[in-house]
Amino acid sequence: MTTKYVYNFATNASEGGAKMKNLLGGKGANLAEMGALGIPIPPGFTISTDVCTYYYQNAGKYPEELAEQVRASLAFLEAQMDAKFGSDGQPLLLSVRSGARVSMPGMMDTVLNLGLNDKAVEGLIRQTGDPRFAWDSYRRFVQMFGDVVLQVRPATEDDHDPFELEIEKMKRECGVEQDVDLKWEDLKTLVARFKEVVRVHTGEPFPEDPMQQLWASIGAVFGSWGNERAMIYREMNGFDHDWGTAVNVQAMAFGNMGEGCATGVGFTRDSGSGEKRPNGEFLLNAQGEDVVAGIRTPWELTLADSRMRARDMGMDEATRLTEYPSLEELMPDMFGQLMEIYGRLESHYRDMQDVEFTIQKGKLFMLQTRVGKRTGFAAVRIAVDMFDEGLIGPEEALMRVTPDQLDQVLKPIFNPSDKALALKAGRSLSRGLPAGPGAASGRIVFTARAAEAASKASSDPIILVRQETSPEDIKGMRLAVGVLTARGGMTSHAALVGRQMGKVCVVGCAELAIDYAAKQVVVNGKTLGEGDWISLDGFTGQILEGRIETVDSEVLEAVMQGRAPRDNQDIYYHYTRLMTWADEFKRLAVRTNADEPEAARMAVLNGAVGIGLCRTEHMFFSGERILAVRQMILADTLEERELALAKLLPMQRLDFKGIFKEMDGLPVTIRTLDPPLHEFLPHGDEGVVAMAQELGLDVQRVRHKVETLTESNPMLGHRGCRLGNVYPEITAMQARAIFEAAVEAQAEGARVFPEIMIPLVGHVNELTGQREVVEQAARDVFAERGSSVEYLVGTMIELPRAAVTANQIAEVAQFFSFGTNDLTQTAMGISRDDAGGFLGYYQEHGIFPDNPFASLDIEGVGELVRIAVERGRSTKPDIKLGICGEHGGDPASIHFFHQVGLSYVSCSPPRVPVARLAAAQANLLEKNAN
Amino acid sequence: MTTKYVYNFATNASEGGAKMKNLLGGKGANLAEMGALGIPIPPGFTISTDVCTYYYQNAGKYPEELAEQVRASLAFLEAQMDAKFGSDGQPLLLSVRSGARVSMPGMMDTVLNLGLNDKAVEGLIRQTGDPRFAWDSYRRFVQMFGDVVLQVRPATEDDHDPFELEIEKMKRECGVEQDVDLKWEDLKTLVARFKEVVRVHTGEPFPEDPMQQLWASIGAVFGSWGNERAMIYREMNGFDHDWGTAVNVQAMAFGNMGEGCATGVGFTRDSGSGEKRPNGEFLLNAQGEDVVAGIRTPWELTLADSRMRARDMGMDEATRLTEYPSLEELMPDMFGQLMEIYGRLESHYRDMQDVEFTIQKGKLFMLQTRVGKRTGFAAVRIAVDMFDEGLIGPEEALMRVTPDQLDQVLKPIFNPSDKALALKAGRSLSRGLPAGPGAASGRIVFTARAAEAASKASSDPIILVRQETSPEDIKGMRLAVGVLTARGGMTSHAALVGRQMGKVCVVGCAELAIDYAAKQVVVNGKTLGEGDWISLDGFTGQILEGRIETVDSEVLEAVMQGRAPRDNQDIYYHYTRLMTWADEFKRLAVRTNADEPEAARMAVLNGAVGIGLCRTEHMFFSGERILAVRQMILADTLEERELALAKLLPMQRLDFKGIFKEMDGLPVTIRTLDPPLHEFLPHGDEGVVAMAQELGLDVQRVRHKVETLTESNPMLGHRGCRLGNVYPEITAMQARAIFEAAVEAQAEGARVFPEIMIPLVGHVNELTGQREVVEQAARDVFAERGSSVEYLVGTMIELPRAAVTANQIAEVAQFFSFGTNDLTQTAMGISRDDAGGFLGYYQEHGIFPDNPFASLDIEGVGELVRIAVERGRSTKPDIKLGICGEHGGDPASIHFFHQVGLSYVSCSPPRVPVARLAAAQANLLEKNAN
Repeated sequence: MTTKYVYNFATNASEGGAKMKNLLGGKGANLAEMGALGIPIPPGFTISTDVCTYYYQNAGKYPEELAEQVRASLAFLEAQMDAKFGSDGQPLLLSVRSGARVSMPGMMDTVLNLGLNDKAVEGLIRQTGDPRFAWDSYRRFVQMFGDVVLQVRPATEDDHDPFELEIEKMKRECGVEQDVDLKWEDLKTLVARFKEVVRVHTGEPFPEDPMQQLWASIGAVFGSWGNERAMIYREMNGFDHDWGTAVNVQAMAFGNMGEGCATGVGFTRDSGSGEKRPNGEFLLNAQGEDVVAGIRTPWELTLADSRMRARDMGMDEATRLTEYPSLEELMPDMFGQLMEIYGRLESHYRDMQDVEFTIQKGKLFMLQTRVGKRTGFAAVRIAVDMFDEGLIGPEEALMRVTPDQLDQVLKPIFNPSDKALALKAGRSLSRGLPAGPGAASGRIVFTARAAEAASKASSDPIILVRQETSPEDIKGMRLAVGVLTARGGMTSHAALVGRQMGKVCVVGCAELAIDYAAKQVVVNGKTLGEGDWISLDGFTGQILEGRIETVDSEVLEAVMQGRAPRDNQDIYYHYTRLMTWADEFKRLAVRTNADEPEAARMAVLNGAVGIGLCRTEHMFFSGERILAVRQMILADTLEERELALAKLLPMQRLDFKGIFKEMDGLPVTIRTLDPPLHEFLPHGDEGVVAMAQELGLDVQRVRHKVETLTESNPMLGHRGCRLGNVYPEITAMQARAIFEAAVEAQAEGARVFPEIMIPLVGHVNELTGQREVVEQAARDVFAERGSSVEYLVGTMIELPRAAVTANQIAEVAQFFSFGTNDLTQTAMGISRDDAGGFLGYYQEHGIFPDNPFASLDIEGVGELVRIAVERGRSTKPDIKLGICGEHGGDPASIHFFHQVGLSYVSCSPPRVPVARLAAAQANLLEKNAN
Repeated sequence: MTTKYVYNFATNASEGGAKMKNLLGGKGANLAEMGALGIPIPPGFTISTDVCTYYYQNAGKYPEELAEQVRASLAFLEAQMDAKFGSDGQPLLLSVRSGARVSMPGMMDTVLNLGLNDKAVEGLIRQTGDPRFAWDSYRRFVQMFGDVVLQVRPATEDDHDPFELEIEKMKRECGVEQDVDLKWEDLKTLVARFKEVVRVHTGEPFPEDPMQQLWASIGAVFGSWGNERAMIYREMNGFDHDWGTAVNVQAMAFGNMGEGCATGVGFTRDSGSGEKRPNGEFLLNAQGEDVVAGIRTPWELTLADSRMRARDMGMDEATRLTEYPSLEELMPDMFGQLMEIYGRLESHYRDMQDVEFTIQKGKLFMLQTRVGKRTGFAAVRIAVDMFDEGLIGPEEALMRVTPDQLDQVLKPIFNPSDKALALKAGRSLSRGLPAGPGAASGRIVFTARAAEAASKASSDPIILVRQETSPEDIKGMRLAVGVLTARGGMTSHAALVGRQMGKVCVVGCAELAIDYAAKQVVVNGKTLGEGDWISLDGFTGQILEGRIETVDSEVLEAVMQGRAPRDNQDIYYHYTRLMTWADEFKRLAVRTNADEPEAARMAVLNGAVGIGLCRTEHMFFSGERILAVRQMILADTLEERELALAKLLPMQRLDFKGIFKEMDGLPVTIRTLDPPLHEFLPHGDEGVVAMAQELGLDVQRVRHKVETLTESNPMLGHRGCRLGNVYPEITAMQARAIFEAAVEAQAEGARVFPEIMIPLVGHVNELTGQREVVEQAARDVFAERGSSVEYLVGTMIELPRAAVTANQIAEVAQFFSFGTNDLTQTAMGISRDDAGGFLGYYQEHGIFPDNPFASLDIEGVGELVRIAVERGRSTKPDIKLGICGEHGGDPASIHFFHQVGLSYVSCSPPRVPVARLAAAQANLLEKNAN
């Protein structure tokens, strides 16, 4: 039996189909599929990837059968097109393209008009009656073939292209400025000179034999699979070198053969809004690349779009009819065919399509169809509409929307045209790390104090610009719409807190030179001062000068209002449908990281089913509390410390009560004090002196205490449960506040489920002691109040030691919550605050595949999570397992957490919908894999 | 068959022996053993631990057979002693003691003189003719029985003991000051009053029936096994609650029955020097506790000792004969018997014994024998002497010396009497962590500069006192004999570098309040200034005021001279024998951490077989180098940086060449640059300005650069291979220096085996790049020099991520060296520099069993080592595995490293002998376990 290496494709005569992607490559399989659907396409054939594999295993030779199979397919093409390869009558012209199973840069792209030679060009002239078209086609073919197949290229990057030099020379000789001003005779001369260029460069004459042209092109495609750029690309993406590429040989269709010719592109639905509104653009008498090139302004396919755009341009209907007509009007028959094909493609592919077509002398050919790129809004709308149309099921609809697309729907964005204008005007300043999505424009402030002053003075939005942020900047961050820092990574303080607050946040822009004293920032040679407008794109990290209008997310507004969708044209309708499915199909629960009732409320509206991390220290900063906190820290005796703690108790109780009432019926995980105590003290001697005076303490003593508390590596210092173990009275106060608040909230009708979480446990003994303190507080409060609540005591797993001894810790912990921020820092030995010096370099140079603080390092940090899950369960099979690091809102990380079998992820309130979708997708992927 | 619960012991009539420790407890088994050896002991019997178990399983009941067995053994005792229990003729008096398999605080101790009642006391008077002795014995019995058996005790700690109150009252009534002034009639009255106290407290009369007394005492012993203190002790030590205690009932022997009576203690050899010189002390007509109590000065057993001490006291022979005679002279027969028993005990137990004896009216009884405590010197000498005497084999000799004892032999110590005087004079100031063993006395300096000045001005030793040390203090540390810091743990900079340099080092003494400006330190209310004498005991962490004479280690002197032992009385003879065995029996190789030829030489003399860690950064600090290093750091371009590196190259080459030549034939592991660059920059703006001026750079620019390099958590910052990856030119320079040095050293006849070690690798990609840089340098140098050397490239495993991905890293690494200092820091999330705030508390409160920086945390950090070993070997089964953290010199850690199968440990030069011994012991323990 002979092996089949060559597969024909043609309208109603394809030998392959979409499912044969591995053998025919993506392009070949799709062309075959379109043909099989009866959609008009220029016929052609695909040489399979097996030939590529053979080629590399046999030192560049082809299988014996190949030549005969190619000859047979060529005959099939000639019959289909009623033309002859190399003929001077009706010449068959071909395109040759590579096509692997996934699209891949670095490989040979395209040779067009193959089959032209001195004889065939005469046939083309005869056929079209247009010698300029024919000689120009020939000229282009020689140039393209010379470049991509024969590699006639400039010797160095600084040299000029030898073909372009000839064109320039010819234009000088003819005294013309533009290519289009060259006459057909000039082009004919140019063909001859191009051939001479080839002869000089290769030492061989340009191949006149079309078969020789064809085989050389096929060889060039296979050869390009093994070139360096393609190899590197595959290695970077983990693609297999053995996959190989296919070669697609296709008859040319010309949209530029004069009357009755056109070419265009289009989407079956609106790629911006997702509305079911077929659309597209076209040019009369043009080649495909002309539409994209933007030299001529393309016209709209539909009458409706034509009228709308004309109105935008201030064009009256009469002018429109002559200067801006639609295909619908000009070629109603072709338009009708195209719309019918749109419908057929959508019902076949069950997704919005991005198509290319050519009309050659009144005959429509589809050149390409592929899934259309779309905005977040369109992705959500199309997925749900297609479900409503019966095209897809809910699982498929869920898989159609990426988490990032969903996020887009929830964020304010820049008015696109306003932003485009700004970019055109050269107002782009620099780019940082996109740490908090959304768009924000505001007046620059450099300090929290200035933020307060500016807010009082005017209602203009403000943007806080800092070297890096610290807890002292929180008030300023709260007042700002956006935060910009020169230092810090994706999980620096600014990024973490900014995201938590839902602020637009761009961090780690090293190009900013901030001078606090002068109240100005210099970036890229421009100096901006306090009060100047600046704009941050939190999606891309772009930083722009001046003000750019932002547009609110309609969906988020609806979510926060809790309103019902208006109708099935309301994007909020699509959003709610999608999120309902997400909840139906996910296994992971999604909780939120929230420290305040307001944030908790937003998270619940966003679909959170509990709080996974309530940080208690943020509550310590406001107003008078910080005084009591500082009193506690500076206390010399247990009695002094308990006195200060007694002041904090009612405040903490109030905080917790508010949260419990807000989270009625849902679990609330509260973490005991975590940061090192010096974080609560002022910086600088001036602040220390002021503090001592405010508290009526001896300055010298306070200075000494502050000095004592200073740490070389605060991240690894006296913090977390180490505070609670050395000062059990702090944990006791916090536990008491929690239980008193819980009992009170319960008395007022709320159902409360406190889960008390001990941070930074490394050794089980650290948890044992803290659990005893918490349980004692519970017994005391329940006895005093004559009422009790159910509660759990668990721990964070955020140290490698905790992960590998999870079996021991599980004996005492009722739940684990993975603190993947700190676990990443300790497992990798990288301080997120100091990673700036090398992390960027590492990502750029491929040393790290990703930023491990944005997306969990699954191989390393994930391995510790896996070990901890396994060991924790070996002790307590049903232990509750969650994760409350920033990775809880990262889709790739969520997939891992699903796989490893956690019970829930917890993320910032705005990320909750994204996490719900990612959790559903993780479950569906797992389901489909099994 | 009846179960045997009671075992008699007596001279030549024991039913048990030393091997029955689990059943008879330690004390019972040893008494039985002595009896079986024919050594005279007061006879008795042991109630087995099985009874204790039965007692707890049956709610305080005894097995049925017990009563009869106790009766039978009592009859045996009466026969042995020719006395009758409770008789007014020849009354049998007993002691009752607890005795578990290990000695254990918290349990009932001893009841003496049991069997006395109103009748038996008359018998005792008749027997001794001494009514005062008899009534006093009775009085003591009632008090002791009342206290430990009947628990007649003060109600609270503040209350007075009811028995003592009676004594006070009686003395007031009699108008006497001292107990001894009470007459026998008073004592008789006191017995009656004591009994009344018992009746009032217990509601029962004092038991007159001796059998009742006996059973109550037995019950009290068993009951005390379950008391809280004993339970806690067992839990803390991991002892099993099921072990149970035995009860020992033994006939009383009296050393205080008048003429021909004595009591004493002794050692079969000198416990201080280990010399074979039997010795001991005794008192005529006294009870055992009197010797220890120190009210009367005991006399020497031997004539030789008696003469020597008398000479010391300036006593002439005539006076000595009357005031300070020896047992050898007073009771030559008893002395002879005792010496004969000494010999028998040594040959039986094959170890130096610590004994107690009593002579009752010319009859010698041994009360106890146990292995004698000894100094390090004695341990080494005794082990080797006993081998020479044919008592033990080399393996046993090796197990007889603890690593700490060996270390003692190598260290200078305080002249013991000088230190004792200082303590008596109240010159103890405080206590820190003993980070570098030895003893040192010197004048205080507070800065490296002052150290230099002081060294030039005088030859007095100096001690550097600092808040904490940094690399800038190294010069000062080198000049000092000791280092004292207020901050930092066992692996702080001061501790690490101090130990490395062999300095006496006490760190983390938080009580020091150092005022650099005033050049003084205040501790415990005392103020010491620059130039004042201070003394550090690096064995204990003690800090003393003033000067204390130190005594050099004779062994170390001999090692460094490489001399031969003088004779078999030379401690150096014993040391070398022991170390030869250690090398014979160990499997782990012992290398050293050394950065300089001098340190390397010392390590080799100490038995190191290679360098496991040569830090290259220490070489960067001296003289002009620091300038070039700073130039490199402040460089803005690659060219500037390479210029500075070119200056460093010849200096580094010289360093390495010296080390290669010193280590001729041995492997040298060199670590590439590790610390963050800012460690090489001056602190404070003044230093920055000076540096800028020195280098001719713009101050503002330098300030900015220094600011940029500042890190929040330098430990987790831009250091280790992250430097080499971002600035490959640094690694390239270092590699070139290594290979040039290696080739040159080889040309001069040295055999060189460089092993290049890349620090802080977390991801295999970080190693791949660095290995390429190193290999390129090797190729370049070998080509230029026309000569090559064998070398390896490996990595440190010091991050948890590296441990769990060791399988990937092993694909690129030719060896692993565990950096357990950093691995401990990252695995536990504890900065060694900041651990002061809680680590002490954690150890005190049993949260951490040990200081994890001194002794490896085997459960946690060790688990990561185990995972890394397993995964590394899964990729490369024969990969070379070592450890170069400070734990490489810690015996417990060495045992673990042996178990886990490493190839070598590397430690500071002075620790090498200790590591060799620990390695041998680890192997022997493993051998014996299998």
